[in-house]
Amino acid sequence: MLAADLEKPAMRSYLAAAKDFASGALTPRQFLEDSVKLFEHWEPKIGAFVYTNLPAARAAADRSTERWRAQKPLSAIDGMPVGIKDIIETVDMPTEMGSPLFAGWRSEKDAASVRALRDAGAVIVGKTVTTEFAASEPRGTCNPWNLSHTQGGSSSGSAASVAVGIVSAALGTQVIGSTIRPASFCGCVGFKPSVNAINRDGSHDYQSQSCTGILGASLDDVWQVAYEIVDRVGGDAGTPGLQGPPRAPTPRKPQALAVLETAGWDAATPNAKAQLNDYVARLKSAGIAIRTRYDDKEVAALERELANAAELSHRCNGWEGRWFFRVMVDRDASKLGPITRERTSKYDGLTLAEYRADLKERARIRAVHAALAARCDAAITLAAPGAAPEGLGSTGNPEFAVPSSLLGVPSLSLPLFEDDGMPLGLQVIDNFDRDADAFAIASWLESWLMQAG
Amino acid sequence: MLAADLEKPAMRSYLAAAKDFASGALTPRQFLEDSVKLFEHWEPKIGAFVYTNLPAARAAADRSTERWRAQKPLSAIDGMPVGIKDIIETVDMPTEMGSPLFAGWRSEKDAASVRALRDAGAVIVGKTVTTEFAASEPRGTCNPWNLSHTQGGSSSGSAASVAVGIVSAALGTQVIGSTIRPASFCGCVGFKPSVNAINRDGSHDYQSQSCTGILGASLDDVWQVAYEIVDRVGGDAGTPGLQGPPRAPTPRKPQALAVLETAGWDAATPNAKAQLNDYVARLKSAGIAIRTRYDDKEVAALERELANAAELSHRCNGWEGRWFFRVMVDRDASKLGPITRERTSKYDGLTLAEYRADLKERARIRAVHAALAARCDAAITLAAPGAAPEGLGSTGNPEFAVPSSLLGVPSLSLPLFEDDGMPLGLQVIDNFDRDADAFAIASWLESWLMQAG
Repeated sequence: MLAADLEKPAMRSYLAAAKDFASGALTPRQFLEDSVKLFEHWEPKIGAFVYTNLPAARAAADRSTERWRAQKPLSAIDGMPVGIKDIIETVDMPTEMGSPLFAGWRSEKDAASVRALRDAGAVIVGKTVTTEFAASEPRGTCNPWNLSHTQGGSSSGSAASVAVGIVSAALGTQVIGSTIRPASFCGCVGFKPSVNAINRDGSHDYQSQSCTGILGASLDDVWQVAYEIVDRVGGDAGTPGLQGPPRAPTPRKPQALAVLETAGWDAATPNAKAQLNDYVARLKSAGIAIRTRYDDKEVAALERELANAAELSHRCNGWEGRWFFRVMVDRDASKLGPITRERTSKYDGLTLAEYRADLKERARIRAVHAALAARCDAAITLAAPGAAPEGLGSTGNPEFAVPSSLLGVPSLSLPLFEDDGMPLGLQVIDNFDRDADAFAIASWLESWLMQAG
Repeated sequence: MLAADLEKPAMRSYLAAAKDFASGALTPRQFLEDSVKLFEHWEPKIGAFVYTNLPAARAAADRSTERWRAQKPLSAIDGMPVGIKDIIETVDMPTEMGSPLFAGWRSEKDAASVRALRDAGAVIVGKTVTTEFAASEPRGTCNPWNLSHTQGGSSSGSAASVAVGIVSAALGTQVIGSTIRPASFCGCVGFKPSVNAINRDGSHDYQSQSCTGILGASLDDVWQVAYEIVDRVGGDAGTPGLQGPPRAPTPRKPQALAVLETAGWDAATPNAKAQLNDYVARLKSAGIAIRTRYDDKEVAALERELANAAELSHRCNGWEGRWFFRVMVDRDASKLGPITRERTSKYDGLTLAEYRADLKERARIRAVHAALAARCDAAITLAAPGAAPEGLGSTGNPEFAVPSSLLGVPSLSLPLFEDDGMPLGLQVIDNFDRDADAFAIASWLESWLMQAG
């Protein structure tokens, strides 16, 4: 049995452990008991959960144990302890959305993704802390690598609980940088899929570029969770959903990569820049063609388009969520955080005509990116400007995470770098609907780095 | 002031009345008081409402009266009494979805469409009866034209309350025939927009071809409600939303119309068929080219594709709603109606691969319809096979209403025919995103019929 590591954050891959379930050397229930130990140790320090249902989790783990014993698991993630961002509905627990306006509120149903996880045998440990309405107002979760630093929002508790091994994977969402950024800050794998690729019904994010994201202990765990959800409930209604194989895609060495600076480059720490630059130099020496804004006109054009990615995203999101925040203001504005009040007010005056123009502008920028696909397998960049900054009053700079949100394309954060003694992610950004390819390239980049040492 | 007609169902156009508001000859509060009288008279007979909030409605009507008096109405529908199908969320009333599983349940927010109505000054009278989860299990609303006949679901109370003038318009939804059919049976105008054209956030219909529909007293009232909603909250997030002018489109005489039989023709009553055929003959004599399956290969091809429209729609809907009904079955299967249990079970075994194939098939059929646009301004057909059938155990045959749902295109039901002493609708089906044109053609067809006598 795994010994719970209580000294420093350590992730626990369920897929790596599951090979012992068939032999009986380990059981899902035993795996969960380590989760409980880790929860008891870490939760008072990091505050990753809003609500847990440990009796239900133990009962689910026992049923999973029986299925593995009978060699009839429901899926490869049967028994996996998972966390659910508290913006996503659960039938057996409240969904509070990080807001006192929804304290104790119950949807009386599961979100599509949550139902799919249950049907795949996953063990729902609890609801993880989200910033207020998955926006920017933090709700106190600490970074397990340094408790006085932010964990990065808005999938705050999901990233922190994966980082310390309480769960092997957790659902998040991303409309700006809410999956990639906390994954980078907490040192776990983060996956923001192609827009619409994972069913969002029952998730309270109302924006067109928002996605259900997955934070997990390894690329394999993350892929498997995504696959099992989509196999059961598809993508957003009317779309084909995530495309790819039933097990994590095999590594693929890219021929050419774009290296993006994004609007975040100026804010990146010298150490973060140096690590990326060094990594890119080694990729070149491995024979991979590297295209940057300094030597490639199309990459330069994309960089120019992305300079405004955050503001354009906020404008789209602002229109799409305006009705909701108006209702909340009328319910009780005093229960909204200052960041939410300020942002709500900023975009309240948008018109339908402006929104339509913004959609066209977004589509135009997406086409600029899509045109690069012929000459670049994917793009890489940092997942954040550096380590998680000190202080719990802000979730940090999202500029590196915004591009894949605006573009509606898949991105992954891999915990390959470090900064200031804390984790920092390498980000892989692939093209629309090429989520599996993003995993294949990320897998190659990860294993190659490990081999290269 | 209008006198409430208590003898037989009579609709009340708010837009027709509003011309008296500026002069002060009539006030929104007075208009609402007639609504209340009609409610008190009709509601015990027809059972159109699940919940009302008359004190809030009166207060809203008083505020509207002040605005009209100051000549500063918020919109052309400022003060309009409206009903909200109880599948759509309201912050001040429960949303029960026609299910005991949601008895008294509160979303604690307004749906986007409801918030838009409030921002436009509309007066929310109450929540109207829906079949169970907007599917097929009736919840007892009676047809005001004959209390022993169905009102047609699933927008049951919305159609019935508009028909008797309690409200001038009401929100419904349609994924199979839930707006066009009850509009036909109750004799009001029904509008099923282009898919995604009216924002569905906060409406509990999770299917890709589902739409927020509008039932109303006239084409003008219906257009205005649609316009005012979309002007404030757009279409579904990420789409441009309903396109069209700020006042109801002016009548346009079509050059060529397809006349569809659909899969419903065999079930149509001889009288219904005769009325459509007679109407078509008169359109021909007015110089409009008529294309049917008997003389036009493309129309014949479309008719063949539409033969299976209901089953293909049910398959898409079945996959898309499966997760939800699985959760409900686990909550308490005994609280689900027999039709819902049977349908849920029928489609529970669908796979993602089958769903993807169904989406492709739907897209292929949509292309067959779209190809007709070059040669037909629109299509017309019946809105139902005849008058509302006797009995409250079924909501009636939806075959005529399914095509526009499957095709994702706008359709209107106009109360121009009658059958068995009850109303019957003429249906106008236009092309995707040509909602305004559907109104323009319907308006011409309506006024021409009146002139032609």
